[in-house]
Amino acid sequence: MPTMKDQNLETKRHSCSHVMAAVIFKLYPQVKFGIGPTIEDGFYYDFEFPKPIEEKDLEKITQGMEKIIKEKLSLNKEEVSIEEAKKIFKSQPYKLELIEDLAKEGNKKVSLYKTGDFIDLCSGPHVQDTSEIGPFKLLSIAGAYWRGSEKNKMLTRIYGICFPTEKELEKYLWQIEEAKKRDHRKLNEFLKLYFLSDDVGPGLVTLLPNGTIIAEELEKWAKETEKKWGYQHVLTPHIAKEELFKKTGHIPYYAESMYPPMRMEEKGKGERGTYYLKPMNCSMHSLVFKSQSRSYRDLPLRIAEYGTVYRYEKSGELFGLMRVRGPIHQNDAHIFCSEEQAGEEFQKVMALHQYYYDSLGLTKNDYYLSFAIRGKDDKNKYLGDKKMWAKAEKITLSYIKKSKITYEIEEGGAAFYGPKIDFNIKTVTGRVFAASTNQLDFFIPQAFGLKYTDKDGKEKIPVCIHRAPLGAHVRFIAFLTEHFAGAFPVWLSPIQTIIIPITDKQNDYGQKMADKLREKNIRVELDDRSETTSAKIRDAELQKIPYILVVGDKEIQEEAINVRVRGEKVLGLMKIDKFSSLIKEDIDKKRQV
Amino acid sequence: MPTMKDQNLETKRHSCSHVMAAVIFKLYPQVKFGIGPTIEDGFYYDFEFPKPIEEKDLEKITQGMEKIIKEKLSLNKEEVSIEEAKKIFKSQPYKLELIEDLAKEGNKKVSLYKTGDFIDLCSGPHVQDTSEIGPFKLLSIAGAYWRGSEKNKMLTRIYGICFPTEKELEKYLWQIEEAKKRDHRKLNEFLKLYFLSDDVGPGLVTLLPNGTIIAEELEKWAKETEKKWGYQHVLTPHIAKEELFKKTGHIPYYAESMYPPMRMEEKGKGERGTYYLKPMNCSMHSLVFKSQSRSYRDLPLRIAEYGTVYRYEKSGELFGLMRVRGPIHQNDAHIFCSEEQAGEEFQKVMALHQYYYDSLGLTKNDYYLSFAIRGKDDKNKYLGDKKMWAKAEKITLSYIKKSKITYEIEEGGAAFYGPKIDFNIKTVTGRVFAASTNQLDFFIPQAFGLKYTDKDGKEKIPVCIHRAPLGAHVRFIAFLTEHFAGAFPVWLSPIQTIIIPITDKQNDYGQKMADKLREKNIRVELDDRSETTSAKIRDAELQKIPYILVVGDKEIQEEAINVRVRGEKVLGLMKIDKFSSLIKEDIDKKRQV
Repeated sequence: MPTMKDQNLETKRHSCSHVMAAVIFKLYPQVKFGIGPTIEDGFYYDFEFPKPIEEKDLEKITQGMEKIIKEKLSLNKEEVSIEEAKKIFKSQPYKLELIEDLAKEGNKKVSLYKTGDFIDLCSGPHVQDTSEIGPFKLLSIAGAYWRGSEKNKMLTRIYGICFPTEKELEKYLWQIEEAKKRDHRKLNEFLKLYFLSDDVGPGLVTLLPNGTIIAEELEKWAKETEKKWGYQHVLTPHIAKEELFKKTGHIPYYAESMYPPMRMEEKGKGERGTYYLKPMNCSMHSLVFKSQSRSYRDLPLRIAEYGTVYRYEKSGELFGLMRVRGPIHQNDAHIFCSEEQAGEEFQKVMALHQYYYDSLGLTKNDYYLSFAIRGKDDKNKYLGDKKMWAKAEKITLSYIKKSKITYEIEEGGAAFYGPKIDFNIKTVTGRVFAASTNQLDFFIPQAFGLKYTDKDGKEKIPVCIHRAPLGAHVRFIAFLTEHFAGAFPVWLSPIQTIIIPITDKQNDYGQKMADKLREKNIRVELDDRSETTSAKIRDAELQKIPYILVVGDKEIQEEAINVRVRGEKVLGLMKIDKFSSLIKEDIDKKRQV
Repeated sequence: MPTMKDQNLETKRHSCSHVMAAVIFKLYPQVKFGIGPTIEDGFYYDFEFPKPIEEKDLEKITQGMEKIIKEKLSLNKEEVSIEEAKKIFKSQPYKLELIEDLAKEGNKKVSLYKTGDFIDLCSGPHVQDTSEIGPFKLLSIAGAYWRGSEKNKMLTRIYGICFPTEKELEKYLWQIEEAKKRDHRKLNEFLKLYFLSDDVGPGLVTLLPNGTIIAEELEKWAKETEKKWGYQHVLTPHIAKEELFKKTGHIPYYAESMYPPMRMEEKGKGERGTYYLKPMNCSMHSLVFKSQSRSYRDLPLRIAEYGTVYRYEKSGELFGLMRVRGPIHQNDAHIFCSEEQAGEEFQKVMALHQYYYDSLGLTKNDYYLSFAIRGKDDKNKYLGDKKMWAKAEKITLSYIKKSKITYEIEEGGAAFYGPKIDFNIKTVTGRVFAASTNQLDFFIPQAFGLKYTDKDGKEKIPVCIHRAPLGAHVRFIAFLTEHFAGAFPVWLSPIQTIIIPITDKQNDYGQKMADKLREKNIRVELDDRSETTSAKIRDAELQKIPYILVVGDKEIQEEAINVRVRGEKVLGLMKIDKFSSLIKEDIDKKRQV
């Protein structure tokens, strides 16, 4: 279970932070200590140094830590009274502040951990002795306000990581390095997938021709797949009256994430009404259900749409293609079915996710589920009654278990109308993307008064399942870009092959070959610039084009092309028809090269 | 030239209205006369009757008119002084008002026309004698305020039509009747293409599964065609900052037709800015051009998008699918090219239109051009200088002439940034749809500071061509629905074929046949309801499904199906593979059945 906390490893990391603090205490006796918790993959500790330290000082600290680890120092716990603790930490203002707080909370005693000469205020747990700490590395230095408040003093934070084995540590370091190289914003420089412009507005993304090709291939694939799986497509408006979103509960429960309203009164034409950009498609699909009378014969009614929504994300959270405000094209659908059908439909959606992931070469190690339920303390964030929630949670959990996909429970993460499953996928660099969602909803069909006539002639209320396996286009493209480092499978590559004539003399022949491939619907380009062959190959490699076809006099003579595969593998001389079959098979089978 | 006015016919229609007035004068001597002009296809005359008349009174009036026409009464013109005219019309208050106006305009004399005993104030021209008037028909009675102002008295308007031949008159009457039957709003009852909902807002349309299939087929076709014709596709946001629309001139020149603004200040998060839904895509595509440096090698750069726009149409003008507020998906594109390339590109766009129309079976009689130029008196409705307009008008007109398509000049109809060609298409009922546009624009590249480096190393400003041959999806679907009376060509038919088992006993076999067709991507349905065969066939006919496949015991025995073509033609027993080839060919060749 990839993101479940490993208590044992957490303990090692926490002890590692104590060891770091112990070394720093020795090297900088005037230092004042803040706190030193574990975080994902590692730990940090905040210090107030008498004078600033630099990245190069980490080397010295590391050496000190290695020494302590070899020494097998024990980490001993001790309990002392508040008064005693205040004496021990009398020259440590931050620790004193923490002790005061513990006292205010009613604690009579506090626990301390001792590592050699270094004593820390800490509730533990810790390893028995320092030799249990695994391979570690100090990563970086950053500024951090004491207790996160900018009213307080700025302390110096040192980040470190710690893993059970050297191999895992190295993999992690590789992932960090690789993640920097694979950052979709960086690769975009060569791939030219998208741009963001202040002239349009923050978080409003334009897909350039290359990005649009990927988006269209995904859309085509999703629509064809949905048709095979029994979905019907619709096209609904992007805006609607306020009252509609009140009915769904988006206002007020989701209003924070919606763009501000458009008020018809401003037009001064006597028309009234307040309109919003839709943040989700559920209201629209409910109206589609309601647009005609429905019977049990119509169920399950699976209404799909590449629905485009807009969300007012905080400007600080906007991030390339990963988090945008719009347009968010998502392969959305709502399945309206009877309560008896809900389980099977829910399971089919899980299977559909797996079909998509399999086709992209993702294995069960590459994704996991978050089962998001209501938080205990904020009942006013949610709609509907207790019984409804209990039923939805029970059904959802039973199908999560059946799917045998790893999952974790996320308290407080539910949608306002029901519990949800989020599919999280990981790139090869370990970056996690919340990619899509599968939700069982008893609320919305009631809110819209949706009904169908059952076999027995009685009117019943359907259940609604929300799902969007590929999530938002742009976010999924960001995932694919980082996962494949821009070297997309052939079917998704904006340019599938490029023809590079060695000199201008072969341009006509190159054009002829390009035309032949284009006729077979292969996305081909001809690089007829007057550049050197190696420069043209370098540019094609930067664009991660799967196949590079070089043509010189020899190729003309043999009526062939010279095939290079992305990443320097050379297949050599080949007839164009043979190459065309080869690449067509890659495309049809959604293969990498 | 279909909409050019035929002066001769106009004269006949005008004389016909005089003849009607003469008869009414005889039948209702107390009547007061308003005016009696010609309109498209006919004429009307407004009267104040001493007591209301009814539709059935038209018969009597018609008989009187036929008599006068047979009598070959001459229509004589006479000029009299204002004073004399006032005497002649002393008991006609509306005519007196008109005479007063003529006097105020400085006229010393006015002209009269005499038909038998009836004298009318009229500047003519008229036919020599009433026998020249062609076949006519009085159509209807309506109320109309004197001079169109609701402050005035309500008069009674009688509408009539008049044509050179009986055949043309009958065709017109057939078209009126047929147009009622073909009204896309009426056919929608059976075709289930779309719905409008007050819950969403006026003019905001949802395409149901059947309508979405047509929209997607059109989109696929347009995108494939555009790719072949050298276009690249992008995906741009639906909203942008006010400043962007100020740059394009949409604010203030097009602001009337835009939805009210969204103000970020309302979110209370410190973010400022006013956003609008885009009414056109030109600003976005200009930013795409600008997103990287461009050279002459990149031109012509043809940027296409199924761009979705919203327009705040007056609520009184909304009309089914024909006039909506949104979403308006249109196969939009902007071609950025050098001035030297503009002519050829413009011509290619004309050719592209013709390709689309040909494929749909439309001939040159089914469409014509409006060349919309600036109005003389409202220069402040337009952007840019005189020289720019003159150049754009000259180039545009020269290519209109080259296209050999019929055209008319529409003064005052230009876009605010340049002259435009509108393609108008006519359904078989004669209803005209302004379908699409082709515009040469020298303004927007300047406004956005667009530049490219030419061969000589100098920076130049490109020209922009706006075009959207299929126009707005929904409007085009409305046209197709009315033109084909819902009996779409097979490739556009939401359901391409339906299998009707004679009894429940053949349902399994029907399902097997359906599966076979579905495998070949044919849109097939199985009608396995327990209804009679004739009832099922009737329902399929109402839905205008191209092929109805009936299966009974005989068909099972022969391992075949019984094929009926939409509209009662029967092809009889056929093997499923043969039928599948037949329908596939219809689809590939975009044929009607």
